[in-house]
Amino acid sequence: MTAEPATPLLDTVNTPDDLRKLKREDLRQLADELRSEMISAVGQTGGHLGSGLGVVELTTAIHYVFNTPEDRLVWDVGHQAYPHKILTGRRDRIRTLRQGGGLSGFTKRSESEYDPFGTAHSSTSISAALGFAIANKLTGKPGKGIAVIGDGAMSAGMAYEAMNNAEQAGNRLIVILNDNDMSIAPPVGGLSSYLARLVSSGQFLGLRELAKKFARKLPRPLHNAARKTDEFARGMAMGGTLFEELGFYYVGPIDGHDLDALVPVLENVRDAAEGPCLIHVVTTKGKGYAPAEESADKYHGVTKFDVVTGQQSKSSGGPPNYQNVFGDTLARLAETDDRICAITAAMPSGTGVDRFAKAHPDRSFDVGIAEQHAVTFAAGLAAQGMRPFAAIYSTFLQRAFDQVVHDVAIQNLPVRFAIDRAGLVGADGATHAGSFDVTYLATLPNMVVMAAADEAELVHMTYTAALHDSGPIAFRYPRGAGIGIDLPEVPEQLEIGKGRVVREGSKVAILSLGTRLAEALKAADQLEAKGLSTTVADMRFAKPLDEDLIRKLAASHEVLVTIEEASIGGLGAHVLTMASDDGLLDAGLKIRTMRLPDVFQDHDAPEKQYDEAGLNAPHIVDTVLKALGKDNLGHNSAGVEEARA
Amino acid sequence: MTAEPATPLLDTVNTPDDLRKLKREDLRQLADELRSEMISAVGQTGGHLGSGLGVVELTTAIHYVFNTPEDRLVWDVGHQAYPHKILTGRRDRIRTLRQGGGLSGFTKRSESEYDPFGTAHSSTSISAALGFAIANKLTGKPGKGIAVIGDGAMSAGMAYEAMNNAEQAGNRLIVILNDNDMSIAPPVGGLSSYLARLVSSGQFLGLRELAKKFARKLPRPLHNAARKTDEFARGMAMGGTLFEELGFYYVGPIDGHDLDALVPVLENVRDAAEGPCLIHVVTTKGKGYAPAEESADKYHGVTKFDVVTGQQSKSSGGPPNYQNVFGDTLARLAETDDRICAITAAMPSGTGVDRFAKAHPDRSFDVGIAEQHAVTFAAGLAAQGMRPFAAIYSTFLQRAFDQVVHDVAIQNLPVRFAIDRAGLVGADGATHAGSFDVTYLATLPNMVVMAAADEAELVHMTYTAALHDSGPIAFRYPRGAGIGIDLPEVPEQLEIGKGRVVREGSKVAILSLGTRLAEALKAADQLEAKGLSTTVADMRFAKPLDEDLIRKLAASHEVLVTIEEASIGGLGAHVLTMASDDGLLDAGLKIRTMRLPDVFQDHDAPEKQYDEAGLNAPHIVDTVLKALGKDNLGHNSAGVEEARA
Repeated sequence: MTAEPATPLLDTVNTPDDLRKLKREDLRQLADELRSEMISAVGQTGGHLGSGLGVVELTTAIHYVFNTPEDRLVWDVGHQAYPHKILTGRRDRIRTLRQGGGLSGFTKRSESEYDPFGTAHSSTSISAALGFAIANKLTGKPGKGIAVIGDGAMSAGMAYEAMNNAEQAGNRLIVILNDNDMSIAPPVGGLSSYLARLVSSGQFLGLRELAKKFARKLPRPLHNAARKTDEFARGMAMGGTLFEELGFYYVGPIDGHDLDALVPVLENVRDAAEGPCLIHVVTTKGKGYAPAEESADKYHGVTKFDVVTGQQSKSSGGPPNYQNVFGDTLARLAETDDRICAITAAMPSGTGVDRFAKAHPDRSFDVGIAEQHAVTFAAGLAAQGMRPFAAIYSTFLQRAFDQVVHDVAIQNLPVRFAIDRAGLVGADGATHAGSFDVTYLATLPNMVVMAAADEAELVHMTYTAALHDSGPIAFRYPRGAGIGIDLPEVPEQLEIGKGRVVREGSKVAILSLGTRLAEALKAADQLEAKGLSTTVADMRFAKPLDEDLIRKLAASHEVLVTIEEASIGGLGAHVLTMASDDGLLDAGLKIRTMRLPDVFQDHDAPEKQYDEAGLNAPHIVDTVLKALGKDNLGHNSAGVEEARA
Repeated sequence: MTAEPATPLLDTVNTPDDLRKLKREDLRQLADELRSEMISAVGQTGGHLGSGLGVVELTTAIHYVFNTPEDRLVWDVGHQAYPHKILTGRRDRIRTLRQGGGLSGFTKRSESEYDPFGTAHSSTSISAALGFAIANKLTGKPGKGIAVIGDGAMSAGMAYEAMNNAEQAGNRLIVILNDNDMSIAPPVGGLSSYLARLVSSGQFLGLRELAKKFARKLPRPLHNAARKTDEFARGMAMGGTLFEELGFYYVGPIDGHDLDALVPVLENVRDAAEGPCLIHVVTTKGKGYAPAEESADKYHGVTKFDVVTGQQSKSSGGPPNYQNVFGDTLARLAETDDRICAITAAMPSGTGVDRFAKAHPDRSFDVGIAEQHAVTFAAGLAAQGMRPFAAIYSTFLQRAFDQVVHDVAIQNLPVRFAIDRAGLVGADGATHAGSFDVTYLATLPNMVVMAAADEAELVHMTYTAALHDSGPIAFRYPRGAGIGIDLPEVPEQLEIGKGRVVREGSKVAILSLGTRLAEALKAADQLEAKGLSTTVADMRFAKPLDEDLIRKLAASHEVLVTIEEASIGGLGAHVLTMASDDGLLDAGLKIRTMRLPDVFQDHDAPEKQYDEAGLNAPHIVDTVLKALGKDNLGHNSAGVEEARA
């Protein structure tokens, strides 16, 4: 472990109030110390590095110029907010980032008054900042709304919707476009090309141009036809028309690492703007840390690393990640099937689509942060006879729920949903947990919903989905590494709506959906040891349910326990509903459902999250024993029999 | 009833193939006849009138120029597609529009090969057309993707996401922007001002300019820095830069009622474009029918009407619509509560927010077709201490599901969701049904979910929501008129998570959520007549559940039946889950859950839809009798006792 860096000036700054007492010429040193401190901290904890390094100067300048927390600062996505956390009273906890009980890797309202809005999913910041601005306008309170948003996040429709509504905020809204030409993967699409042209078209705005600009004060955006010619001319010279056309006054591009440019621009916008402003700042992801600047992904997300060498702790080999199993399987299937396409929304490596893209570049589509478009685009492909796989994290598929309903399910189009990061996600916490997909998908007519119990199952499900042309089909699988099971040489086409009995018993039946299967099997061993013969079924499908299997198990067992890494409304609810429709419950069959608890679980180590959720083997055993009653064991003949066996 | 118009030329056109055999000079007459036919048809059926009238010439020109159905034509939203239906082999059924078993009011894949993609929710067309274009590109098939999208629909983020991805389609993608300065309500926001400036800045593109433009062929969009100056100059002259910046070649504005302009432009784009094109067409909603042109909403949606006078059939007075009860209640509450705000996404009159806006214009926000922004903007307002009501149709709230999860529920912010059009919606059909909100909201931690059984309950729930500052709260209510109950003078604050017993009985308990309460009471009468004493509870809350009430009813009744106008995963699933957690089911308590069926129900008269769904009183009675068993009645002492009473 490297020694912590000397930070004499930063040591005097506990809050932005302290920062604002510094002379402007001291800010350079402060920024340098802030950068060292951040590198040192993330070296110890792992987390998001490149994004934070890119905004060290910007963070310093914003807090220096604006009156936070009264001015409401919203960091889009929030994984660039580590320097912000250091400057806003959380430096003493910065080495707990993303650890259980420690600081969140994103902004979070409960952490600090300097985090007025929690972020994590992209592109929410302008809407939220507009809410702050308008609330203050209505109540006559001071305080602007300030959104800092990356160029990648600007490709999401939500950001555009918000920009389209900005005018009403007047000069209370400031949007800082942090253009580093890179979100997680290189950005795509027309907007990205456009920004690149803006930046390449001229040098950065110098101090003299700035002074001239602000001397005549910022005009109210557009609207006034008389000002039109002037505006188009400005648009032509500065290339800012896209934002101006949406009602913003555009300032930029500005070198986002040059405090001598940043501070005066922010001051001028603060004091002189008469309408909403968009400040276009150009930064370098990973700035000031050579190993990050030089790496392809700019150290977007890192494990613990050695500060001097930049060497990241390696994971210990082990089983392949689910995402890679998916990507490789799909790539292989596509070798003999021209109709297979893959779509990702700015997550090529996170979803394994990069592996598919390498083999089949023409049939791979990264649409940017644009899940809504991704799903309806896939629906269009399906309607024209292709076999599209939309590979999207569970939590991000929420962005496209209406498209899943309206464009896919209602039309019964065979879009395949490869749902990554389903269930709990460890250090990424509540905002990234994939808790709800089983519920929100299984409630839809026409939808097929599968969950993979292990990586071999994922291979089968990918194959099954490819062959399923009669309607939409979704399969979910978790974050991280598989359980280490052998991958099948030849994938198997699963029968739709059929589960499999993994272990035969006679008194207790555990119906598992997805990844809790291993815990179910462990629990079965423990129950067996207590004399309770236990069946374990991998249901595979939340919809359609394997009703025959459920009826059979209900008829031959005393207790049925369902378990899934999903919220209420999923497998458990569907089994109960089917069982009550069927009258299975009337005869005193005992059913219990185990699922994610009705809380948003904080970030923590995965195994602790499962414990907190009550989804490990001991919890299953407890649930069974409780269902059977304390003294049920001794008095039940079957139980006694098994206890003897 | 007015006689059907004489349409000698239209009578010869059954499909676009027939149309394409006509001389160009005959198209004017054809369009005139098409317009008369459409007015006559909608006069008989009611439906969407203004939008279709605005695109009569555009529809004619598109099918004349393009090779539909091989060229894949997607009408955004689709309520302007009536003329398209008449020209594509459906004229014989055009007077069945929106009737049970008749033509849909939107495009629909199952209706015609000329409807390659069903629409209804706004802003999906570009994504779908892009899907068609890319699929054909991959497979080497001919056929372009053509999206016709209104200026209102362009304000939705999804359209922007698609535009941002257009370049990859090359010249296989054509977007026709149908700019009538009006979707359902007047449009709002920066984009709308921008389009208005484009149109007002110059006269329509004349034939000569067009010829000149196309003589040098359409260049590939942007990218090439050498072409930059030329492009900015063109942008300045024609104002098309916003679309060009996103990668389109922009042509326009063009008079959308002038076939002599439309046809050559479309032909040129078809033959000469080298990249994706956006054609900006200006039309008048309601064109060619004086009563529509003169009305404020351009006859957007109409009842049957007299073609000569334009007089619409009046509804017979009767109880107020739910939406108006909500709008009036909220306006009244806001008189003494400065923190209440209302937000609508382009549906001011549909949600009743127009009534609120009249009284409180400063606190009313129409954000355009932008549900994602609407919800996060509301979250920002709530985070700054306001009491925002996001009034959104159930089906459209699906567009903002991620924002509900990520920005509202996780942060536990007190955003109030006024969910209109919950449940079945009659003539608007499957795409507009509000079937899923109970399920997708009640699965979220922190969320409170209410459903109003009648308009008086809606008053109470609006008031209860206003006072609920501890977290998010949603209340759903149906489309259309209330049941005619007196509205309370003074609204009542409901206790969170508590239902009410509306009728006391002892053998059967019906647990109703929302609007099926009236049917539950009818069913109770019928059950009583059969000797089955029946309790009816209005649960009011799907979340949190009134567990005490459920336990009490479980202990004292033999059968519990839940009923709701919602899909699987709602009240029924939550009651079953709670009951199984609690062990209530172990003792042989009979629970049955009644809900919407697992199909997307087609448009029909509301009462027929409820029959199809099995949610009327006779279905409740059947469910109870079946649960009790045929001969259960006679043998059960309580039943006999009650039969005697």
